[in-house]
Amino acid sequence: MERTAYRLADIVARFGGQVMGDADTQVRQIGTLEHAAAGQITFLANAKYRSQLERSHASAVILSKADADATSMPRIVCDNPYSYFARLSAFLNPLPECIPGIHPSAVIGKDAQISGQAHIGPHVTIGAGAVIGAGTVVMDGCSIGERVTVGQHTRLYPRVTVYHDCIVGNHVIVHSGAVIGADGFGIAMEEGRWLKIPQIGRAVIGDHVEVGANTTIDRGALDDTVIEEGVKLDNQIQIAHNVRIGAHTAIAGCVGIAGSATIGKYCRIGGSAGILGHLQIADHVEIASFTLIGKSITEAGSYAGVFPFSKNEEWRNNAVHLRHLGDLVKRVKVLEKELESLKGERV
Amino acid sequence: MERTAYRLADIVARFGGQVMGDADTQVRQIGTLEHAAAGQITFLANAKYRSQLERSHASAVILSKADADATSMPRIVCDNPYSYFARLSAFLNPLPECIPGIHPSAVIGKDAQISGQAHIGPHVTIGAGAVIGAGTVVMDGCSIGERVTVGQHTRLYPRVTVYHDCIVGNHVIVHSGAVIGADGFGIAMEEGRWLKIPQIGRAVIGDHVEVGANTTIDRGALDDTVIEEGVKLDNQIQIAHNVRIGAHTAIAGCVGIAGSATIGKYCRIGGSAGILGHLQIADHVEIASFTLIGKSITEAGSYAGVFPFSKNEEWRNNAVHLRHLGDLVKRVKVLEKELESLKGERV
Amino acid sequence: MERTAYRLADIVARFGGQVMGDADTQVRQIGTLEHAAAGQITFLANAKYRSQLERSHASAVILSKADADATSMPRIVCDNPYSYFARLSAFLNPLPECIPGIHPSAVIGKDAQISGQAHIGPHVTIGAGAVIGAGTVVMDGCSIGERVTVGQHTRLYPRVTVYHDCIVGNHVIVHSGAVIGADGFGIAMEEGRWLKIPQIGRAVIGDHVEVGANTTIDRGALDDTVIEEGVKLDNQIQIAHNVRIGAHTAIAGCVGIAGSATIGKYCRIGGSAGILGHLQIADHVEIASFTLIGKSITEAGSYAGVFPFSKNEEWRNNAVHLRHLGDLVKRVKVLEKELESLKGERV
Repeated sequence: MERTAYRLADIVARFGGQVMGDADTQVRQIGTLEHAAAGQITFLANAKYRSQLERSHASAVILSKADADATSMPRIVCDNPYSYFARLSAFLNPLPECIPGIHPSAVIGKDAQISGQAHIGPHVTIGAGAVIGAGTVVMDGCSIGERVTVGQHTRLYPRVTVYHDCIVGNHVIVHSGAVIGADGFGIAMEEGRWLKIPQIGRAVIGDHVEVGANTTIDRGALDDTVIEEGVKLDNQIQIAHNVRIGAHTAIAGCVGIAGSATIGKYCRIGGSAGILGHLQIADHVEIASFTLIGKSITEAGSYAGVFPFSKNEEWRNNAVHLRHLGDLVKRVKVLEKELESLKGERV
Repeated sequence: MERTAYRLADIVARFGGQVMGDADTQVRQIGTLEHAAAGQITFLANAKYRSQLERSHASAVILSKADADATSMPRIVCDNPYSYFARLSAFLNPLPECIPGIHPSAVIGKDAQISGQAHIGPHVTIGAGAVIGAGTVVMDGCSIGERVTVGQHTRLYPRVTVYHDCIVGNHVIVHSGAVIGADGFGIAMEEGRWLKIPQIGRAVIGDHVEVGANTTIDRGALDDTVIEEGVKLDNQIQIAHNVRIGAHTAIAGCVGIAGSATIGKYCRIGGSAGILGHLQIADHVEIASFTLIGKSITEAGSYAGVFPFSKNEEWRNNAVHLRHLGDLVKRVKVLEKELESLKGERV
Repeated sequence: MERTAYRLADIVARFGGQVMGDADTQVRQIGTLEHAAAGQITFLANAKYRSQLERSHASAVILSKADADATSMPRIVCDNPYSYFARLSAFLNPLPECIPGIHPSAVIGKDAQISGQAHIGPHVTIGAGAVIGAGTVVMDGCSIGERVTVGQHTRLYPRVTVYHDCIVGNHVIVHSGAVIGADGFGIAMEEGRWLKIPQIGRAVIGDHVEVGANTTIDRGALDDTVIEEGVKLDNQIQIAHNVRIGAHTAIAGCVGIAGSATIGKYCRIGGSAGILGHLQIADHVEIASFTLIGKSITEAGSYAGVFPFSKNEEWRNNAVHLRHLGDLVKRVKVLEKELESLKGERV
């Protein structure tokens, strides 16, 4: 498809910042420093890549005041090049339009209320009593349970499942394979057999949330599981029943959050980290990748707990002593005592 | 929908236990101590939440003999409030009925035998020669391979896949996105290329098993992968080829079990734990979250191996020494020797 | 179905090796040492299972020259019994034939080019402008986005999703629930809200790649995510945007690879391992299960970093000291100094 070209002058008129060099330079798309071609604009968000600027074939670049003189290329100077790039890229690469209509292969339950401005793709199933808002796109193969509410301007990519009675907000994006509202893992042992505990809460997803591919968000056992507005979830995250995730928290791939944990606002959780059940995590907490949080965190800050890797033999030589670390500490304590007594004698 | 109300007297007549207070109190639903409203019954399974009892707006509570006097609210006193609650909740919240019939959009293979008492939802594909038992619900978008057998009173939520020739028992629940019987990871290196080893075993799922959302259970390479009866699997678990999981074992989310591992009965495995291939785990073993089991466990008990988290700088200051732990142990040994010899001289 | 029988003489004529014992012995299928029955051939790839040979009910066995005299059973002697077994098993267990045709329930977009030799199953959606090559099988419920290219002789198992514009090579296998080309996790913080960064690169999957069930491979942010030829990916792996995985690398289940990491050729990565973003991993690197790689690896070899498990109390007694390991090292340094000074005095 033919892309529209924009002059740098047009871009700063819309997004702010200042042009240096030829303001009539035209760009159609964004590219990386390394691979941008003519007609593309690139960005420099980190001064350490400054040396790549001169080799770039981009037609223009977005950069900060501090880097404004790093090139003679036509450029847009602004406060935050990374978010400027994000805004410009969203403008140049809008999501495909919502084309209203219901594909004839979709199966729509009784009393479902589907906005005339919504798009329902092929092979979709919508349960009885479900509500789908205006501007919302439900792509092929999605399964929307009975009495589910999906807000406006939300996009469900192919093969998303939302179980019965759950709520998905406005301007939400859910990627393929995500499962919202499956039963939480609630079982009770009785006489050598597990009884299943019905999971009668819901999963409630706030506005402007994004849910990654194959991520699972369980429904609550009795009360709801809640993902507050603006939360961003990467792929293959597991969120157990009755978890609450505070607004604008971002969680990287493969994280597991156990039941009834409460995560604060504006937290950032690294890939494959874990949080045990019933814990409370304060606002503005950062958790490193691969770290298990085993007790509540009451204070903002960065937390980590990862075994450092090394060559296999080296690791083996060191790790073997971990099973005797308590003993080692005792041995050091004995040494300290004996040395103290030796020194005492000497006096 | 209007829920039926039950008197406490009716409930104990059905489930046992003893009413204290007004036995005519009516309840329609279960709720948490915190959020239960009038018409709901709550439960106290852990004495540490006793103080929440007086603030609860529930109409009644299930509790143990030890807690019987903790409130004057109408109450049911029983031996195990948690399993009592599970049973009562299952009674008040039955699974939706199986409405027999095959949706016209389903595609049914040649010679498939589908019980007249089974429900086959929209957009389902059932392979040639598959068998679906009475009372079984196959929800929308499921894919059932050729010659698969699914037992009776089993429920496959939307978009479950069962590969050809696999067996799913009776009273099984499988949640959305689960994949049963995909090829195990069998490859052999030959002259710089991987050869694929055909995976010709099956995945065999016993009765009363529950499989969480997006969990994967691979088929066997030659023999079968086996999940014994009553096993409960949470979401996003990966079970490799030729694993055997003993009856009534419960596994939390994101666990990975490598090929040919054998897990005993009544084990409990915490979230994101891992078990290496070809290991044997005894019955009644508990494994902590985030723990990698690297050799067989022959004895029941609790096992763990997790790096404790701390503030980032603190972690860094400590972890750096792990790469020299072997050296540290040697240094302590030298100190002990030298001190011993100093003490010897002194005598 | 009736399987064809082959004489050992026929098999060595096709695959090489040498028969010892009755070359007219017929076999129809492969089996394990433990469970092979009459009419099956088994294999001995590891001398440690030699003792199982005499109890085996197999009709024949594949083994190495070193083990040639370990049994009197009819046998095929060859250099690499494991890859011989792989080849023979692939011959005895070919993938089901591709039966060309488009199921009437499939929904095909405008200008899609589907080879007359391809198979498109029930409930498949193929986007506008997509291309599907000859001999390729797209099983039921798959979602192929707009302008996607899928090569020849590729097999997409049920419910695979490929997002718009992505490329899947020839002779590729993708298992159920895999998602190729979902948006990478690209967000920029601006005034307390996350801006979404459009993900306009593609995911490009090379020839002879295998992708496991529920694995996710994100599209690139600007440039492409690339999986080179012959890469083998197990289940539930998460590959972030702009990752590049070198040819013939094999990755076990549940691994997470963060954005823009580059993995070399012929690497082997154990289950649930992780690699942080922007790292470079050399060719022929082996990474142990459960190990987080936190900095680039420039040298081939084996690497590990796992906390060894033990009985729970033992672990607790040892792990508690990890939070003071830096202090312990300092205490040992003090001891060494003091002892040195004591020894000095003594002279």
